[in-house]
Amino acid sequence: EKKEENISGATMQLASWEQEPRKRILEWVEQVTDSASSSYIPASDRIAVFDNDGTLWTEQPIYFQVAFAIDEIKRMAPDHPEWSSQGPFKPLLEGDLKGFMAGGEKSLGALLATTHTGMNTEEFNQRVKTWMQTATHPVTGKHYNEMIFQPMLELLDFLRSNGFKTFIVSGGGIDFMRVWAEEAYGIPPYQIVGSMSGLSYEMDGDQPILNKLPELFFNDDKAGKPVGIARNIGKRPVFAAGNSDGDYEMLQYTSTGSGERFGMYIHHTDSVRESAYDRESHIGQLNRGLDDADKYNWMVVDMAKDWKVIYPYELK
Amino acid sequence: EKKEENISGATMQLASWEQEPRKRILEWVEQVTDSASSSYIPASDRIAVFDNDGTLWTEQPIYFQVAFAIDEIKRMAPDHPEWSSQGPFKPLLEGDLKGFMAGGEKSLGALLATTHTGMNTEEFNQRVKTWMQTATHPVTGKHYNEMIFQPMLELLDFLRSNGFKTFIVSGGGIDFMRVWAEEAYGIPPYQIVGSMSGLSYEMDGDQPILNKLPELFFNDDKAGKPVGIARNIGKRPVFAAGNSDGDYEMLQYTSTGSGERFGMYIHHTDSVRESAYDRESHIGQLNRGLDDADKYNWMVVDMAKDWKVIYPYELK
Ligand SMILES: [Ca+2]
Ligand SMILES: [Ca+2]
Repeated sequence: EKKEENISGATMQLASWEQEPRKRILEWVEQVTDSASSSYIPASDRIAVFDNDGTLWTEQPIYFQVAFAIDEIKRMAPDHPEWSSQGPFKPLLEGDLKGFMAGGEKSLGALLATTHTGMNTEEFNQRVKTWMQTATHPVTGKHYNEMIFQPMLELLDFLRSNGFKTFIVSGGGIDFMRVWAEEAYGIPPYQIVGSMSGLSYEMDGDQPILNKLPELFFNDDKAGKPVGIARNIGKRPVFAAGNSDGDYEMLQYTSTGSGERFGMYIHHTDSVRESAYDRESHIGQLNRGLDDADKYNWMVVDMAKDWKVIYPYELK
Repeated sequence: EKKEENISGATMQLASWEQEPRKRILEWVEQVTDSASSSYIPASDRIAVFDNDGTLWTEQPIYFQVAFAIDEIKRMAPDHPEWSSQGPFKPLLEGDLKGFMAGGEKSLGALLATTHTGMNTEEFNQRVKTWMQTATHPVTGKHYNEMIFQPMLELLDFLRSNGFKTFIVSGGGIDFMRVWAEEAYGIPPYQIVGSMSGLSYEMDGDQPILNKLPELFFNDDKAGKPVGIARNIGKRPVFAAGNSDGDYEMLQYTSTGSGERFGMYIHHTDSVRESAYDRESHIGQLNRGLDDADKYNWMVVDMAKDWKVIYPYELK
């Protein structure tokens, strides 16, 4: 409810959105929730899906989940003296992120396997929780879960208050997100879809544990997103929001369904308050999405122009 | 709401349950939803999981999903004349179920691959829908979705009315269940976990389709059930109900969590109104579950003694 107040304190829906984009969203929702309208969508079909990195929170200068993984390597390093003399983590421990990235997919795979698997789910959850409470962003100095987008929080609330179920459908790790997303976005674990490692059920004495295995079970990105939606949600969404070409198929799958649909691309245009990047970016590349926005009637949100505020802490 | 009326029409919770098992359920729910109790479970943690075959509906003389697959083979046979002269479906088309079953896993695999894959999800959903509206059970003559358990419908409603989220976690196919389970049980597609085939996102002209591939992606049975719960739900359940050793790990995972937990086994003891089977059965074998029921404080429901009615149509 707090989230629906505008800066002056009066309750207003989508208060952090400028007038034009705000109107477009309000009118669409009004239309599809009006049982007298030919565009009416019954509540049971009001499925709204959101990418996470770059759509619900910032993803620069590196994906926050990668920042977590790097911090974990540093935390674990004293128990692994060999890391500082050889192997993929040597540049990381020397503070040379570029050198590490030069290792490509292989180094990134080792980073994720070492920090996200080889432990049970409870242990992993605790590590993410601790990190989220302590680590801070290199530019803003804020905790990472404070760098969520205020206008998107308002959009999530607004859709839910109109009978929509809101889901995250992200290329990020499902276990990583579930630890903090309910508090941050009001989205419970069973409404989060993401990439998944192998998992095995084992007994540790008389206590069952779920061990995270060093293998990729499902990559919830690009054409994997509609697949992940089919598997974990089982209904075709009527609303989808993303920010990169990794979301293209999810938006396409949503927008080509019959009846009224809403597709939204967050365009990172604000180099002052956040970051500006699109077609040439290594993170969150947005190319096909911009090309085909008109074809699919996608709303391209210009962060610099369309959002009055970026982060919730700006309102305090 | 209808479901909560007893036979005489007066509203009563769990009206189809006999006094003793009814009391045990009511008292547990009262305890864990009482914020003043040390056993209190906050609403966000009230996750209840239910097996489907043999727990929410009948599974004899064959799993209903297998009955669907066999009917599909018969429907498709005119386009496949070779099936009647050779291969795994020959005995099926001659009405020789035993002969077909003698083909073991290989024949069953061919049956499922032929009837559940090689088509897109929309086509499959339509086939299940049509079958459910037309096919009838060989013993009762009822539609299969009428052979759901009235006491379990009341239990689902009762838990939901006390803030629980109810999920299906079944070895059955996730796509098969999602077509009819919302209407039958009030459980929406995104709260259904099941076995899954491969799935690919493809364009058919300018329309995206999801093709069901002839490969098993995930087997949601035995130790796979807690894994499926971790993946599709992301929270450890506090209530679990099953009927066979395929549910053992799901109940174990539930019952060994900290705090108050409820584990329930449906014991098929009623040879008159339904079917009687347990330790020696090929379908729904219940052996370890009976052995360890005391150890884990699982409630073993004696269908013959504990349920006043089995099916909703008995109330009409
Ligand atoms: Ca993104
Ligand atoms: Ca069963």
